[in-house]
Amino acid sequence: MSLPQTFASRGPRIDAMQYDNWSEKIFQQMREGGVDAVHVTIAYHETFREMVANIEAWNRRFQRYSHLILHGKWASDIALARQTGRTAIFFGFQNPSPIEDDIGLVEVVHSLGARFMQLTYNNQSLLATGCYEQEDPGLTRMGKQVVREMNRVGLVVDMSHSAERSTLQAIEHSERPIAITHANPAFWHAALRNKSDTVLKALGQSGGMFGFSLYPHHLKDKSACSVQSFCEMIARTAELMGVEHLGLGSDLCQDQPNSVVDWMRVGRWTLDVDYGEGSKAQPGFPDQPAWFRDNRDFHNIEAGLHGVGFGAQEVAAIMGGNWLRFFENNFVPAKAQAGAAVHPHEIAV
Amino acid sequence: MSLPQTFASRGPRIDAMQYDNWSEKIFQQMREGGVDAVHVTIAYHETFREMVANIEAWNRRFQRYSHLILHGKWASDIALARQTGRTAIFFGFQNPSPIEDDIGLVEVVHSLGARFMQLTYNNQSLLATGCYEQEDPGLTRMGKQVVREMNRVGLVVDMSHSAERSTLQAIEHSERPIAITHANPAFWHAALRNKSDTVLKALGQSGGMFGFSLYPHHLKDKSACSVQSFCEMIARTAELMGVEHLGLGSDLCQDQPNSVVDWMRVGRWTLDVDYGEGSKAQPGFPDQPAWFRDNRDFHNIEAGLHGVGFGAQEVAAIMGGNWLRFFENNFVPAKAQAGAAVHPHEIAV
Repeated sequence: MSLPQTFASRGPRIDAMQYDNWSEKIFQQMREGGVDAVHVTIAYHETFREMVANIEAWNRRFQRYSHLILHGKWASDIALARQTGRTAIFFGFQNPSPIEDDIGLVEVVHSLGARFMQLTYNNQSLLATGCYEQEDPGLTRMGKQVVREMNRVGLVVDMSHSAERSTLQAIEHSERPIAITHANPAFWHAALRNKSDTVLKALGQSGGMFGFSLYPHHLKDKSACSVQSFCEMIARTAELMGVEHLGLGSDLCQDQPNSVVDWMRVGRWTLDVDYGEGSKAQPGFPDQPAWFRDNRDFHNIEAGLHGVGFGAQEVAAIMGGNWLRFFENNFVPAKAQAGAAVHPHEIAV
Repeated sequence: MSLPQTFASRGPRIDAMQYDNWSEKIFQQMREGGVDAVHVTIAYHETFREMVANIEAWNRRFQRYSHLILHGKWASDIALARQTGRTAIFFGFQNPSPIEDDIGLVEVVHSLGARFMQLTYNNQSLLATGCYEQEDPGLTRMGKQVVREMNRVGLVVDMSHSAERSTLQAIEHSERPIAITHANPAFWHAALRNKSDTVLKALGQSGGMFGFSLYPHHLKDKSACSVQSFCEMIARTAELMGVEHLGLGSDLCQDQPNSVVDWMRVGRWTLDVDYGEGSKAQPGFPDQPAWFRDNRDFHNIEAGLHGVGFGAQEVAAIMGGNWLRFFENNFVPAKAQAGAAVHPHEIAV
């Protein structure tokens, strides 16, 4: 089979976190930016049934924009996307709300395509503790059971919004590597959402993945952050935990109205205003840095990584090669991963 | 690959309808009876969320009894089941209640494994009319839309419990063949659930499938029905609509308490008692005929079919070959069926 030039000439570009106001324009920008795969959020505070309604909306997009995107279920769908000039869209939850109090839903949501699930979103959940709580008692009884079931079916534990002790316990308790899909190191920019050296080291030693965020509240100097500062931070993180554990998770929230960041922060859990990482003076979405406005700007990061001294193979690994390997190993059921007979019989709609 | 003797020596045995009180005993009996695939009901009146809870219960059975059964999603799973000495379990609904009023759920339930959906269960539904209603206005506006969507994703229309006009309209409106998974001809035993010659002919001419029921209320002489009478009826039906459109759909409800038949009949739609096909004198499950008590008795039907003059190939077709061909053609999305590129990448849990 003859492949488009781009397929042969570079490795995959994978973004492990976006929550845009989805439109043909954005999918077209993914193509212009050469983005082969994106992990998108389909639940912040949604119940199971509400999350299913979000899948229904995605199914309509997969039909309507079938020339631009496809539903990514397995790592091999990224190869299919590259061969057909499209972007593979993988589903994930930023909160365990879609499994409600029912561990049986873990396998069900995996059947529906969920591939990442955060154990917490800022607050205490049924499973673990979020990064904005005062106390962090660690994984709950149900949390330990759910992590084991996630390991079995191939649903990746994501601790991006979790508190420190819960995160370390998740790394310890999980039999398969976990991910922090979108955050930055606290050594570079101190924020409750950014991660300590302790977490970064434990994550790397356990074979986990860390995705660097482009969300201004996670950046040093926020919207004014320079691409050089961002890439120097990546170089320091590579020294701390190994370049093979690093990728991107931009947290791009393109074209979203501020009502959406309100929903993320407030959900249905409070009657008060909660500004999250923002403030009364800056309640809405902050401006993106000039060098990363949308999916067409990944080349700026690629150039920046070369500029701070990464070699070509390292740059390719950070831009998507590491995520591709992680997807290959961690989306399949544990039984399949262990070398048991697999049965390739699914047919894409 | 070397196959067990049974795989080489006979065609598949497929039962297109059971709703047993599932247990290891019953799965063991499926193996003893050489039953390669069973279409099981996972919803009578359940909402979407309640149906998902039934899938969760099946997922636990698939884990616990993995030496006896596996989740059948595609026709090729029947070959896998035969190669590994197990029975493939396919999901279906006897009522469209799990899709609620939401056409987007058609694709979602197909993703979860649903392969048959009745448009009605005895009563009027949002989609069509059941066989116990006085009036039969035919497919509704939503019914026509849902049939088209079922055709697209590969969810088979089943009219077993539907009224005559609705059934004929479903055959006419559906772009892919439909099924009547479990019923008998009215010419043999007049019952509201049994089907007219008009329906049988239209079903055969459209490439559809008819599954013969072993439920005593559908049998001439009910529990006292003889296997010879049953097989003579099959021979007459073959003359009417062609042997290639015939299979079995036993409607076996083994080990179920009578509370279950109450749920089937009454659901949540009435506060009165409804005896359905039963009566005040015989309100519960009737006794099975002596020659078909459970999954170990399919050989009695096979012998009976030989006894009324069917040839070996015809018997094999009725015992499962016809259903296998129907599963192969009708569970895959229309796009895949039409010869578009398919992408075998699913991995069984």
